[in-house]
Amino acid sequence: MIKAGIVGGTGYTGVELLRILIGHSEVELRAVTSRSDAGVKVSDLYPSLRGHVDVKFSLPQIGGLVDCDVVFFATPNGTCMRMAPELLAQGVRVIDLAADFRLKNPQEWETWYGEPHACPELLAEAVYGLPEINRCAIPGARLVASPGCYPTAVQLGFAPLVKSGAIFPSGLIADVKSGVSGAGRKTQLSALMAECGESLKAYSVGGHRHLPEIRQGLSTWTSEDIELTFVPHLTPMIRGIHATLYGRLKSTGTDLQTLFEHQYSSEPFVDVLPAGAHPDTRNVKGANRCQIAVHRPQDGDMVVVLAVIDNLVKGASGQAVQNMNLMFQLEETTGLDALGIYP
Amino acid sequence: MIKAGIVGGTGYTGVELLRILIGHSEVELRAVTSRSDAGVKVSDLYPSLRGHVDVKFSLPQIGGLVDCDVVFFATPNGTCMRMAPELLAQGVRVIDLAADFRLKNPQEWETWYGEPHACPELLAEAVYGLPEINRCAIPGARLVASPGCYPTAVQLGFAPLVKSGAIFPSGLIADVKSGVSGAGRKTQLSALMAECGESLKAYSVGGHRHLPEIRQGLSTWTSEDIELTFVPHLTPMIRGIHATLYGRLKSTGTDLQTLFEHQYSSEPFVDVLPAGAHPDTRNVKGANRCQIAVHRPQDGDMVVVLAVIDNLVKGASGQAVQNMNLMFQLEETTGLDALGIYP
Amino acid sequence: MIKAGIVGGTGYTGVELLRILIGHSEVELRAVTSRSDAGVKVSDLYPSLRGHVDVKFSLPQIGGLVDCDVVFFATPNGTCMRMAPELLAQGVRVIDLAADFRLKNPQEWETWYGEPHACPELLAEAVYGLPEINRCAIPGARLVASPGCYPTAVQLGFAPLVKSGAIFPSGLIADVKSGVSGAGRKTQLSALMAECGESLKAYSVGGHRHLPEIRQGLSTWTSEDIELTFVPHLTPMIRGIHATLYGRLKSTGTDLQTLFEHQYSSEPFVDVLPAGAHPDTRNVKGANRCQIAVHRPQDGDMVVVLAVIDNLVKGASGQAVQNMNLMFQLEETTGLDALGIYP
Amino acid sequence: MIKAGIVGGTGYTGVELLRILIGHSEVELRAVTSRSDAGVKVSDLYPSLRGHVDVKFSLPQIGGLVDCDVVFFATPNGTCMRMAPELLAQGVRVIDLAADFRLKNPQEWETWYGEPHACPELLAEAVYGLPEINRCAIPGARLVASPGCYPTAVQLGFAPLVKSGAIFPSGLIADVKSGVSGAGRKTQLSALMAECGESLKAYSVGGHRHLPEIRQGLSTWTSEDIELTFVPHLTPMIRGIHATLYGRLKSTGTDLQTLFEHQYSSEPFVDVLPAGAHPDTRNVKGANRCQIAVHRPQDGDMVVVLAVIDNLVKGASGQAVQNMNLMFQLEETTGLDALGIYP
Repeated sequence: MIKAGIVGGTGYTGVELLRILIGHSEVELRAVTSRSDAGVKVSDLYPSLRGHVDVKFSLPQIGGLVDCDVVFFATPNGTCMRMAPELLAQGVRVIDLAADFRLKNPQEWETWYGEPHACPELLAEAVYGLPEINRCAIPGARLVASPGCYPTAVQLGFAPLVKSGAIFPSGLIADVKSGVSGAGRKTQLSALMAECGESLKAYSVGGHRHLPEIRQGLSTWTSEDIELTFVPHLTPMIRGIHATLYGRLKSTGTDLQTLFEHQYSSEPFVDVLPAGAHPDTRNVKGANRCQIAVHRPQDGDMVVVLAVIDNLVKGASGQAVQNMNLMFQLEETTGLDALGIYP
Repeated sequence: MIKAGIVGGTGYTGVELLRILIGHSEVELRAVTSRSDAGVKVSDLYPSLRGHVDVKFSLPQIGGLVDCDVVFFATPNGTCMRMAPELLAQGVRVIDLAADFRLKNPQEWETWYGEPHACPELLAEAVYGLPEINRCAIPGARLVASPGCYPTAVQLGFAPLVKSGAIFPSGLIADVKSGVSGAGRKTQLSALMAECGESLKAYSVGGHRHLPEIRQGLSTWTSEDIELTFVPHLTPMIRGIHATLYGRLKSTGTDLQTLFEHQYSSEPFVDVLPAGAHPDTRNVKGANRCQIAVHRPQDGDMVVVLAVIDNLVKGASGQAVQNMNLMFQLEETTGLDALGIYP
Repeated sequence: MIKAGIVGGTGYTGVELLRILIGHSEVELRAVTSRSDAGVKVSDLYPSLRGHVDVKFSLPQIGGLVDCDVVFFATPNGTCMRMAPELLAQGVRVIDLAADFRLKNPQEWETWYGEPHACPELLAEAVYGLPEINRCAIPGARLVASPGCYPTAVQLGFAPLVKSGAIFPSGLIADVKSGVSGAGRKTQLSALMAECGESLKAYSVGGHRHLPEIRQGLSTWTSEDIELTFVPHLTPMIRGIHATLYGRLKSTGTDLQTLFEHQYSSEPFVDVLPAGAHPDTRNVKGANRCQIAVHRPQDGDMVVVLAVIDNLVKGASGQAVQNMNLMFQLEETTGLDALGIYP
Repeated sequence: MIKAGIVGGTGYTGVELLRILIGHSEVELRAVTSRSDAGVKVSDLYPSLRGHVDVKFSLPQIGGLVDCDVVFFATPNGTCMRMAPELLAQGVRVIDLAADFRLKNPQEWETWYGEPHACPELLAEAVYGLPEINRCAIPGARLVASPGCYPTAVQLGFAPLVKSGAIFPSGLIADVKSGVSGAGRKTQLSALMAECGESLKAYSVGGHRHLPEIRQGLSTWTSEDIELTFVPHLTPMIRGIHATLYGRLKSTGTDLQTLFEHQYSSEPFVDVLPAGAHPDTRNVKGANRCQIAVHRPQDGDMVVVLAVIDNLVKGASGQAVQNMNLMFQLEETTGLDALGIYP
C-alpha cells in the first residue's frame, strides 16, 4: 500500500482527491492537512465522505508527512515550492496540483505569479505530469507538476496537430469555457450563484497565468515559435471544461480523424469521438477522461478541435492520481475507472 | 457471475443501471433492450459509457432475456406486468423499477394508473423492495417491486416515527422537492430547461400516483389509519430528492435523535446526521445513500424530518441493484460503494 | 417629483430599488449611499444601469439625506434603527427594507437579532408595510417597515384563511423555498454556485428570524393563538420564493377558491389563479406580483396554498416602492407595471 | 396608435414580443395567431401576462391580419415567405423574425434551408433590419428581415473592425455561446434540462445556417472576401448570447477603443464598455442592448471582441420592435427602455 498525504484538503481539488483515493485499492491515506480546519474530522466538513474516511485534518507540518510515500499538494500557488525541498530530502515524493513547478523559467514564474520562485533549483528536475504527452518521464520522478484544467484540455487538443506539424504554429486560438468550481472553494463575490449563475463572461482576456504554461507545452513539440491567443470564460455550470481550439492547416489533405485516433489509440483516458461528433462536458462528469472531436468546417483550411474534461478530475485530482499510479508502477487506471455521471 | 438484462435501457434509470452494473464485479450484462433504438450501440447513445460496454440495444423480446438470471425493468408503467409472468415461468427473476407491482390492491392500481392491472395474480407474491424496511422478504423473492424516488425518501424518513408510534398517524405532511431527471428522458415541454430552469413549482397537488404507495407502506407499520398529504415539487436541479416531513409527536419526551440512529444503526445506505444538521442533496449525488436529519423546532410537538437521496440511485437504479444483491445473496453493498460527487 | 435616497445601494435589494426607481416617473434619485463604495459611480458597479443613472455612491451620512422626501434602507438589520430617528426629526420619511421595525416587541427583537433595539420608542409608530393587509395605515406613515420575502409570501397565502377563520390556528406549516439571491450580495461559502447550485437543502429548521414576524402578522387577524412551523429551504435558482402552506379546515364546506378571489379581487399585485392551477416562480420574475393557488387534496380537510413571488420585487424592493406610492398618494401601481420575464 | 399583429405567438420570441408590445405606448395589439392554440386566451398559456392582455390566439389567416398596420412573424423559417406577399399587397407592413428574407441569394437560401424560396421576387426589396448598420433603409421599408441572435452579436462586434479595414478579412473566428432559449419552445430531447443543464457543447461546427447570413453582412462593408469560421455553443443558461470574436489587425497602431466608441457613440442600444472590461450576459438580461468590449491581448496583432446580448430581446423581439419604431417614425427607444434584470 502506498502511504499518501494531502496538503490542503479543504478545497475542491482536495476533496476530489479524497474521493478518488478513498476508492483506490492501493492507497492508504495517512494525513490530510488544513491550516484552517485542523482538528476537524474530514467527514464533518464533507458529509459526502461520512462513513468512508476516519481522518482529522492536521496542521500542514513536515513532521506529519514524512512517513508518507507521496504527498499531494492541493494548495494555492506558492505552498508546494516551500515544502517540497524538505519532503524530497526525506525521501517523500511530491505531486503538486498547483502551478509551482509547471514553468521551467523562474523569471516567467515571477512575472505571472507575482513573487520570486522559492526553489528554482528544483525546476529542472520537476516533471510535467501530462501522462499522454510525457508518460516516460513520470515513473522515475520525485517531483511531478500535475497540470490543471485549462492546460490539460488545450494541450491534449492541440498535441496531435502541433506534433505532426499539421498546422501553422502562429494564430492559434484557444477559446475555453470553464465551470465555476475552477475558481475554487473560496469566498469571492464573483463566484456567488447570484453572480455567475445564468450568465457567461470571458475573463483575463489580457493575459491568464495558464497561457505561458500552455505555450511552453506546445513549444516542446515544435521548433517553430508558438503564437497562441487564450481566452478563458466562466460558464454557469459547476464542473466541466470545453476547449474550442482553432488552427490553420498547412495542407487540407491531412486526414485529421486518423491523426487524432492514431495519437491516442492506446490512451486509456483520451477518447477520440467519431468524425462529426460534438463532445458534451456532461459525458465526462466525474470521470478521468478527455473526449475529443476534430472538425474541418466547410472543408476549409481551418481546423476546429473540441475537447472536454471534468476540470476536477482529468483537469486536477484524477490526473494527479494517474501520475501517482505511473510513479509507483501501478496499473495506470487503478482507482480511476469510475464512469461519468449522466445526466 | 449473475447474468443480467435490462428492459428499457434508454431512459435515465436505464442508463444509471448500466453505469452501476458495468462497475459491479459479480454481474455480466447480457441484454439491454430498447424498442426505439434496437440495433444501436449502447455507447453511441450514451457517450459516457464509451469503451466500457460493448452491447447493442435489442428488441424487448422474451427470447433474448430467458437466459438471464435477473431482468430489470426500467420501463414506463405497464410494461413489466405484461412480460413478468413469462419470464418468471422461465425461471428468470424480475426487478421492476416502475410501479406495476408496488400496490397490493389491483383496484387501487387501476384508479391511479388508468388501466386494469394485467396480472393481478402476481401482486401478492411481489415483494416491495425497500430493503431497510423489508429486507428479510427480499432474498427469496422472484419478483421485486423496487420503489421509486418519492416513496423511498418519504418512507425512510417517516419509518422510525410511525413504527415506534411516536407520532399521530393523521395530519402527516410530505413536502417533497425533486430534480428534473425524475420526469424522465422524454420530450415534454415542461421539462425544457427554458421552462423548468431557474424556476420552481408544485404539481399534482390534487393527487399524485405515489401517494397510495406511500400510504400503503406507512400503513404496514401501524394499526391506525394513515392520513397523509403529499405535495411534490419540481425544482431546478437535475438530480436529487429532498423530503421535508412533518408529523405531530404524541409526546415531546421522545429522544428523536436516538430513535433514528437506532433504527438505522446497521444500515449501510442510510446515514443519520448529527442533531441539528441539514442534509443537502449534493452530498448524495451519484451515491446509493439516504442522509436524514430529525428536528423538533422550538422544542414543540411538531417533528420535522429532512431526508435526501439521489433520485436515480437510492431512488431508482441503485436501490434496484441493492435488491439484486440481496436476492442473490451477495454482499449488499457490492457495486454500490461509489461516493457522492461533490461539488 | 419625490426626492428619494437609498441607504445601502450595493446589495441586491439596493440595485433592484435602483432599477425600479430609475423607471419611476414621479421619483428623482438624490442619493445612493454605500460605505464600501463611496465615490464610485453606481453604473460602474452595476453595468446593467450604464447610461440610465448618473450618480455616485456617497457615504451614509444624515447630511446627504435630509433634503430627500423619503429614504429607503436597503441595509443589513440594525442600520435603519440608528439613523431613522434623526431623519424623521428632519421631516424625512423612512422605508426600511430590513427587519428593524417589523417586530412590535423590542424584547423579541433582541432575542432574534442578538442585540438590544436601538430605538424602541419608534416601534409603536412604525407601520408594517404589507399593503394588501394593512393599506389604510400606510398613507399617513412616517416610518414603514416593509416586509421581506418569506413573510410576504406566507402572510399573503395564509391571510384569507386566517382572517375568515376557515382554518384552525394551530398546526400551521409554511414550507418555503427561496432562490439564492435572498442570501444577499455578500461573500459567503454557502452561496457559491459550486455549493448551492444543483442542490437543495433546508436551513434554520430550529428557528428562523422571520418566524416571529410571520406569527405576529397572522396573530393580528385572529384572537386565537397561532402555532406555526416555518421551514425555509435554499433552492438552486437566483430569484423566486415558493411558499407551500398547510392548514386544517374547520369545515370542508368552505368555497376556498371564492374566498381567495374575494379577498384579493381589487388587489393590483395579487393574482389568484384558477382552481387547480400550480403557480410557477418564473411567471413573476421581475414583476411586483404574487400569484396564488389554493388546493384541497382529495377533498379532505387539509388546505394547501401555493404562493409565489419574486423575492427581490414583491418580496423586497417592489413592495417598498408600493409603500412609497401609498405614502405619497400616488397611483399604487406607478413604476411597478413591468411584466415578468419569461422564460 | 399602430395596429400590430403577431403570427406565431406561442414561441419564446412571440411571448417576448407580447411582453414588449404590451408595454409599448404607441401600439395596439390586434391579433396574435397560433395554429396549435387558436381559441385559447393568451394569458392562459402565459400566466406572466395575466391581467395585461385580453386577447385569444386566432388562426393564422390573412383575413384576421389585414387591418393591422404591421405584422410580426415570430414563426419557424418558411412561414413568412408564404404569407408576406398577400399582406404587403393589402398594405400591411411585415417584420420577419425568422430567416426567410435575410439572405439575398435564393439559391443560398435553398442550400441552407432545404427548400426553394417561396417568393424570391421580394428578396431585393426586403431590408435587413440591423438598425445600427442599416438604419437609413428601414423607415421606408415595407418588409424587414430582422436578424436573430447570432448574426446580431457577431455583426455588431465585427462591424467597426471590418468597416474601418482594421483587420484582415480572412481567418475571422466567431466563437459564440448561446443560452438554451435560442433553441425555441419546442419539445426536443436535447433541450431538456437534464440534457443541457450543467453541461456545455459546441454544435453544427460543420456549418450553421447563420454563417452565410453573417458572411453576407460582413461582406457589404468591404470589397475583400470574408473568410469566417463560426462555431456556436449551447450553454446552460436560459437567456444570453456571448460572442467572442477574433481577427488579425493590419496594424497594431489602431486605437481600437476609440474606433468602437466612435462607431457606436450615438447608438442608444449599443454600449461600448471601458477598456479592459469583460461584458457579462446577465447585465443585458431583459434589455434591448448590446454591450461590447474590445481587447488586444499582450499587445499583439490579434484583436478579441466580446459582445453580449439577450438573445430574445436585442437578438430577436426587441430588435423587431426597434425596427417597427423606425419604420413608423417613432422615437427609436419607445417601449424599449427596460433595464436589465440583475441578478
